[in-house]
Amino acid sequence: MSKVEIKIEIAQKADLVNGKIDSIIKNWDGIPTRLADAIRYVMEAGGKRIRAAIVLWCCELVGGKVNDDALIAAAAIEMVHTYSLIHDDLPAMDNDDFRRGRASCHKAFDEATAILAGDALLTMAFEVIAKNIEAKKAVEMTKTLAQAAGPAGMIAGQMDDILSENSKPNAQKLELIHINKTAKMLQASAILGAIAGGADEKQKKALAEFGLNLGLAFQVADDILDVVSDTQTLGKTAGKDAKQGKVTYPALFGLKESRKRAEAMVSQAIENLSLFGEKAEILKSLAIEIIDRTK
Amino acid sequence: MSKVEIKIEIAQKADLVNGKIDSIIKNWDGIPTRLADAIRYVMEAGGKRIRAAIVLWCCELVGGKVNDDALIAAAAIEMVHTYSLIHDDLPAMDNDDFRRGRASCHKAFDEATAILAGDALLTMAFEVIAKNIEAKKAVEMTKTLAQAAGPAGMIAGQMDDILSENSKPNAQKLELIHINKTAKMLQASAILGAIAGGADEKQKKALAEFGLNLGLAFQVADDILDVVSDTQTLGKTAGKDAKQGKVTYPALFGLKESRKRAEAMVSQAIENLSLFGEKAEILKSLAIEIIDRTK
Repeated sequence: MSKVEIKIEIAQKADLVNGKIDSIIKNWDGIPTRLADAIRYVMEAGGKRIRAAIVLWCCELVGGKVNDDALIAAAAIEMVHTYSLIHDDLPAMDNDDFRRGRASCHKAFDEATAILAGDALLTMAFEVIAKNIEAKKAVEMTKTLAQAAGPAGMIAGQMDDILSENSKPNAQKLELIHINKTAKMLQASAILGAIAGGADEKQKKALAEFGLNLGLAFQVADDILDVVSDTQTLGKTAGKDAKQGKVTYPALFGLKESRKRAEAMVSQAIENLSLFGEKAEILKSLAIEIIDRTK
Repeated sequence: MSKVEIKIEIAQKADLVNGKIDSIIKNWDGIPTRLADAIRYVMEAGGKRIRAAIVLWCCELVGGKVNDDALIAAAAIEMVHTYSLIHDDLPAMDNDDFRRGRASCHKAFDEATAILAGDALLTMAFEVIAKNIEAKKAVEMTKTLAQAAGPAGMIAGQMDDILSENSKPNAQKLELIHINKTAKMLQASAILGAIAGGADEKQKKALAEFGLNLGLAFQVADDILDVVSDTQTLGKTAGKDAKQGKVTYPALFGLKESRKRAEAMVSQAIENLSLFGEKAEILKSLAIEIIDRTK
């Protein structure tokens, strides 16, 4: 599958999920106007929706249909991802004024509204799953999402990332931060898709391993882009990691070696898909695109 | 039931739930030390655990046992309540340095850690329910908790509360804020207890109405205490509402009329319990204690 084709495929999945997210937010009664505006502002900015695309592809890969279960799960993971960006951008955290090509939430609104909009999206993600998906699947999805996003997952990654600023680089610590901060949420996307599609345990395990390796490659690619790209292309502030004294792959190993390692991670991710044979072509192409991307 | 007896009853339920919360937190692997310290710090400070006590009493009232389902639900609601206090105390929100008799989380640690500790507790609440409770009950509890805590519940209340600062008092708006900010979470406590105890729909409805009226009375009592009590007794900053120009019952109606209205709300709450006859004595005593309390 060519670079262009995979981009079109991602865009098609993003459209589907954006439609679902829009309808969720529009039909949510009782949200104060300012809060609803902030939630719409951050969710409409979009982003690549790679996590959502992974949910939908993994669902299809195990023989499931892109039905409401899959779309709700995809919407939920994008809501949790977006909440994490809002909170990470806060002045007390990474202090970033720029996100997805426009002012970050606390700049467009204010800090209080941004904190509450983040809190709201996290809570809404669990509510939409509980409200729309059959109990057994809903509970499995809730566990998957909460574990990935919680204090031993994404939140741990953000905490350690902040604490590691200006500390001495250490490969082991860096990998732990990447696993927690990024890879677990991509892994959760793959598992949510598998659950939605009714996967068996063997399929779930393979997709979980794929998601984790893909997530690791994704974060190394992100570290590299922060060095080699510019703010306009990225839609978020470039060159920030070095400025904030963050531990990154390029800082630790240099750009060339970082690229080599990202490629090895992608190879590993592709290997994890062997169970599915040719049906997994699109996920393989995604894995390659992830380290090849420009934003 | 006497004032002393009801306090002992609350303390006994609080002990049970605190034991459960301790074991949840202690056995949670993979939380970075600083984050775990902050979570322990805020959860160990305790508070009255009134929400937890309501969960357990409502469970018993409908014929359930205080088993793991009830204790997990009680722990979850206290975790969500505590997350809301951490975020509400942040400088960008109510900017309060003092909570539950000691430094608020962002003062004892820092703002980034406080934001993440709040995020963590919210996520953990949903995870413990999904992990420990049978699927059908877990999903019903998740819906109940998320609706009460979400952007059309507690978060809406906090947003409107902030926006109403220094605005012209308005009884209708004030009641909406009280319902969202406080009453829905007390209502959720009653419903969670009912779900844990296997209540029928009629019992659930009665307890939901009881919880809402109790919650309204609770918030009016809180507004009154902010005026008549002192910081040491309250364990949080007294006199803050007036200073921040918040719309409150005493500001709108005066102290005497506010007390009268709180008493009417308590009478309504007690009325909602008529279905249960004498078995509801402890919840009736709690309702009376709530407007009689000194902190």
